[in-house]
Amino acid sequence: MTTSTELPKLAKGTLRIIPLGGLGEVGRNMATFEIDGKILIVDCGVLFPEETQPGVDLILPDIDSVKDRLDDVVGIVLTHGHEDHIGGVPYLLRLKRDIPLIGSELTLALVEAKLKEHRIKPFTLTVEEGQVEQLGPFRLEFVAVNHSIPDALAVHITTAAGTVLHTGDFKMDQLPLDDRLTDLRAFARLGEEGVDLFMADSTNAEVPGFTPTERAIGPVLSDVISKTPGKVVVASFSSHVHRVQQVIDAAVENGRRVALMGRSMVRNMGIAEDLGYLDVPEGVLIDHRKAVNLPDDKIVFMSTGSQGEPMAVLSRIAAHNHQIEVGEGDTVILASSLIPGNENSVFRIINALIKNGANVVHKANANVHVSGHASAGELLYCYNIIEPEYAMPVHGEFRHLVANAGIAKQSGVPAENTFVVENGAVLEMRDHQVRVVGQIDIGFVYVDGSTVGTITDADLKDRRILAEEGFISIFTVVEAATGNIVVGPEIHARGFAPEEAVFDDIIPGIQKALKEAVEGGTRDQYQLSQVVRRTVGRWVNTKLKRKPMIIPVVIEA
Amino acid sequence: MTTSTELPKLAKGTLRIIPLGGLGEVGRNMATFEIDGKILIVDCGVLFPEETQPGVDLILPDIDSVKDRLDDVVGIVLTHGHEDHIGGVPYLLRLKRDIPLIGSELTLALVEAKLKEHRIKPFTLTVEEGQVEQLGPFRLEFVAVNHSIPDALAVHITTAAGTVLHTGDFKMDQLPLDDRLTDLRAFARLGEEGVDLFMADSTNAEVPGFTPTERAIGPVLSDVISKTPGKVVVASFSSHVHRVQQVIDAAVENGRRVALMGRSMVRNMGIAEDLGYLDVPEGVLIDHRKAVNLPDDKIVFMSTGSQGEPMAVLSRIAAHNHQIEVGEGDTVILASSLIPGNENSVFRIINALIKNGANVVHKANANVHVSGHASAGELLYCYNIIEPEYAMPVHGEFRHLVANAGIAKQSGVPAENTFVVENGAVLEMRDHQVRVVGQIDIGFVYVDGSTVGTITDADLKDRRILAEEGFISIFTVVEAATGNIVVGPEIHARGFAPEEAVFDDIIPGIQKALKEAVEGGTRDQYQLSQVVRRTVGRWVNTKLKRKPMIIPVVIEA
Repeated sequence: MTTSTELPKLAKGTLRIIPLGGLGEVGRNMATFEIDGKILIVDCGVLFPEETQPGVDLILPDIDSVKDRLDDVVGIVLTHGHEDHIGGVPYLLRLKRDIPLIGSELTLALVEAKLKEHRIKPFTLTVEEGQVEQLGPFRLEFVAVNHSIPDALAVHITTAAGTVLHTGDFKMDQLPLDDRLTDLRAFARLGEEGVDLFMADSTNAEVPGFTPTERAIGPVLSDVISKTPGKVVVASFSSHVHRVQQVIDAAVENGRRVALMGRSMVRNMGIAEDLGYLDVPEGVLIDHRKAVNLPDDKIVFMSTGSQGEPMAVLSRIAAHNHQIEVGEGDTVILASSLIPGNENSVFRIINALIKNGANVVHKANANVHVSGHASAGELLYCYNIIEPEYAMPVHGEFRHLVANAGIAKQSGVPAENTFVVENGAVLEMRDHQVRVVGQIDIGFVYVDGSTVGTITDADLKDRRILAEEGFISIFTVVEAATGNIVVGPEIHARGFAPEEAVFDDIIPGIQKALKEAVEGGTRDQYQLSQVVRRTVGRWVNTKLKRKPMIIPVVIEA
Repeated sequence: MTTSTELPKLAKGTLRIIPLGGLGEVGRNMATFEIDGKILIVDCGVLFPEETQPGVDLILPDIDSVKDRLDDVVGIVLTHGHEDHIGGVPYLLRLKRDIPLIGSELTLALVEAKLKEHRIKPFTLTVEEGQVEQLGPFRLEFVAVNHSIPDALAVHITTAAGTVLHTGDFKMDQLPLDDRLTDLRAFARLGEEGVDLFMADSTNAEVPGFTPTERAIGPVLSDVISKTPGKVVVASFSSHVHRVQQVIDAAVENGRRVALMGRSMVRNMGIAEDLGYLDVPEGVLIDHRKAVNLPDDKIVFMSTGSQGEPMAVLSRIAAHNHQIEVGEGDTVILASSLIPGNENSVFRIINALIKNGANVVHKANANVHVSGHASAGELLYCYNIIEPEYAMPVHGEFRHLVANAGIAKQSGVPAENTFVVENGAVLEMRDHQVRVVGQIDIGFVYVDGSTVGTITDADLKDRRILAEEGFISIFTVVEAATGNIVVGPEIHARGFAPEEAVFDDIIPGIQKALKEAVEGGTRDQYQLSQVVRRTVGRWVNTKLKRKPMIIPVVIEA
C-alpha cells in the first residue's frame, strides 16, 4: 500500500471529497466524503487484474487515507450489487466489522451473501428510492436508477457545505423490464433545489446516442431458441437478473425448462427469486444434473463464463470438461458484452464451440446484449435536467472521464468547474464552492492467495520477468580458503529450457570466476554469489540471447 | 516440433496439398503442394504470440513434413509482403539457402531486406500479374489482387491432377489508390476454364457486406489535420504504403511536412519509394530529428506502434520516453485496426495521450481505417465468378473458416466439397477430384531469443506458473548417515514475496522431514528432494494459499 500524504486538518463546515478508486480504471469504485469529523463512504468495489498483473486475484481500493479513521465512518452507501461496487466490502469490514452498510434490499442481500463467505454478519440499513436518512452530518436521499442489475440507487448527499448527487452506475432505459425508471422527476426536483457537485458514471460517455432498451433482447433470444433443434446454452453475467428473466421467459415461450449453472449464478438468482426480483413460473427451473436427461429441445442452460473465464461453466463445456456436451444442432448464446482484454479468451471459446459443431450467437452477430450504462445522449439529458454547478466524472478510464467532462461542458457547466481528476484527488466544498486542493498517493492493493496488500509492484515485475524469461539458479558450496567448489554447482533452469548438457559449458567458467575472486580477496558469500550471477548472466545472454532471472547461491564451507 | 505422421507415398499424377499454418489462427500462413516428387510452397509467414505464450518472439509454421524434402522444393511463392506471409522465410532458408523465392517486385524487395538482416542473399524470380511460369510440374499464373499492401498476387496453380486458385490475402476495393484492381476478369477466365480447388482468405468472412474503399480515409485524415493547431502524429502499420501515401497527401494539402519514424516504417517506405510504389513530392519528407525544430503546425509524424507495442514509437511518446512531446493542441491518429488481444495495450496508450492533453482519433471515433480483407459480400462475388468445384477456406480462426465455407455453400459449392480443415490436413487431388485423406500433427515452433523450436509447450506452462505463482527454491546439504542438515537450507522465493522471516517457520519442518526420511531408509538425493518439495508445498499452500513452483535440491555430503 502506498503511503498517502498526510491530509491537512479540515475546517469546520467544509466537505472533503476523495475518490479512492474507479477514476482512470474500470472497477474498485469508492469515494469518501468527510465533514465535521465524520466520514461517509460511497461504494467499495474491486478491480479485476490485467494481463500485466499475473496471478493477482483482485485489486482493492487503497484505503490508506481512511484506515486510521474507521471509528469516524458513519456508514458505507452501496449504490448497487455489482462486484466493482461491493467486492471490497469484506476486506474493509475485516478492519472494523460494525461499520453500517446502507443500500437497497437486493444490494444488501448480495453483499450479505458475500460477507457470509468471509464469516462476517454486517450491520445494515435497507433503504429504497425516495427515502431520506440522516447519518451524522450527512443527509442522504436515495433516487431510483436503472442499471444492468435491479434496485440500483443514486445518492444525493446534503451537508452544511453544499450538495452532491452521485449516480452510481446507471442508464436511462425508458422501457425497463421492471418498469423502474431512472427517476428523472427526482433529478429535476434536486436540480431545481440546486445540485452543487454532480458525480456521474462515465463508462459509456464515449458512445454517441442512447443505450437501447433491455426489452429489445427478448424477441431475439426467443427467435434463436425457437430455431434451435438441440440444446441451448446462454452465458451471461451472474447478477444480470433482467437478462436471466428474459432467458427464462424466452425458454417458457418455447416450451423449454431452464437449468441455472455456475455457483454465483445459482446463488444470485436464488436471492433474486426469494426477494421477488426474478419471476420464475412454477416448474420451470430444473437442476442441471437432472436437465441432461431431458430431450435436447426441452432445455436451456443458463451459465456463467461469458468473459472466457477458464474455470467457468462455458469454458469447461467448450473444452469437453463438463457433463454438458454441445455439438451439431445446439446453440450457444453469449448474451453479454466483451470486456476489453478478454477478446482472446472469448474467441478461443467461440472457436472451440464452433469446432464442436455448435451455432454460436453473440453480440457481434445478433442483438443479444445491451449495455448497462448511459450513453452520451442520456448523460446530456441528465446534465440539462440537473444543471449542476460543478461536475466530477467518475467510473471509467481517463478517456471516459474526458468524454463525460466534454458532455458536462456542452451542457453549460463551466470548464473550470469540471474536474477530470485521478484517484486520490482531494476536493473541498465550502459554501457551495468546490475546488481541487490536493492529491494523495493511491496504490494498487493486491489480493493474492491469502495475502492482502503484501504483493508489491516489484513482485509483479518479477513475475513478468519469470513469465517472459524464466530463471536459472546456481547453488554451490566453495572452500573458503581456495574458492574450490566442493559441492555443485547445481544448476536448475525453468521456462527457457536449454538441454541439461548445455550447462556443462558454463561450469568451468563458474569455477574459474570463483577461484579468481577468492584469490583476489573476495570472501563475502554475497559478493561471491554476484560473481556467479555475472558469469552466468554473460554466458546466457550471449549464448541463448535471453535474460532469465538469475538466482546465485554461494556458501562457504 | 511435433513429429508428423509419416506421409504415404504419393501416386504419380496425384497432387497433395497440406496447409501447414494459418488455419485456425491468424498468421504463419503456409501451404505445400506436391506432385510427381516435386514440392511447391505458397507463403511462409510468422504468427505473433498470445498472452498465454509469454516471452515468445515469434511462432513459425511446423515444417517437419517438408524439412527432409527441401531438395525437392521447386520454389516458394510469396503472395505479398506481410510478416504473416513472409516472416518465416529466413528460418526456412537457413536450412537451404538456394530455394528460389517467387513474388512481385515489392514483395521480394521486402523479403530481401529481411533476409539481409539474417545475412542471406536469396535466389529470386520477380513476377507480375498475368505472368505465367512453369516450375517443374507446376504451371503458375499470377493474378493481381488488392490488399493493404501494394503488389499482392493470387496464384493459379495448374498440375496434371487439376487446378488450384489461391487468393493470398485480398480484398476488392473498386477504387484502389493505385488503380490496381483485383483482377476479376482473370478470375472469370480461370473460372470459365475450370478451377478445381479455391483457397480463399477467410479473415473477414464473418463481416457482412463490403469492405469500404481505402480512398474514403483520405478526406478524413485531411480534415483532422486541418483542424489541428499543433503537431499531428499518425500511427499505422509499417508496410501500409497506401495509408502512408494518404497521410503524405493530406499533410501536403495542409502545408505540412512528414517525418517517418520507427525502423520498419523508415525501411519499408524507403523501399516503396525507391520502387515507385510511394509517391513523395520533393521536399516533403524530413528527418524526425530535424522535424522537431519545425513549427508544430508544419509537421506530421508518421509512426509505428498502432497496436500498443511497448517498444514502438507511439508507446514511447505516450510514456514521455521520446524526444517528441505530445500535448494540448496536438492530435494523434491511430489509422489502423485493433488486433484482438491488443485492446488493453492500445487503450493504455490512448488514455496516456489524452491525459497529456492530446486529441486522439481512432477507428472507434472516426473513419480512419478500412480493412485489407474481403468481407462476406466480396467473397460471394468471387465464388460466383469462379464457380469452383471444391473450396478450402484459408487464413483465419476456425470461426472465420466456417463463415467462409458458409459463403462457398451459399454460392453453390456442394457441402461435401467444402473443406473446413485444420493445419496439417492432407488433401489429395486426382483427375480434378479432391478429398481429405489424412492429418499430420502440427506443433508450434517457437522462436525465443536465439533458439528456434527449442522452447516447448511445457516450458510455456512453466512460464505461466512462474508468472501466476512465482517460485520457491530450497537448497540444502545433508549428512548422508543422519539426514542432519550441514549446509542450508537456503530458501529463495520470487514473485510471491513472503517476508524473509516467514521462512524461519518452515526450516524445522524441513529438518524433521529429512531426518525421518533418512531414518526410514531413504538415501537417494532425488527422493530426499521430493521430501523437501512435499513439506514446503504443504506449508506454502496452507499458510499462503499459493502454489508456487518448488525447486528442491538436496545434496548428500
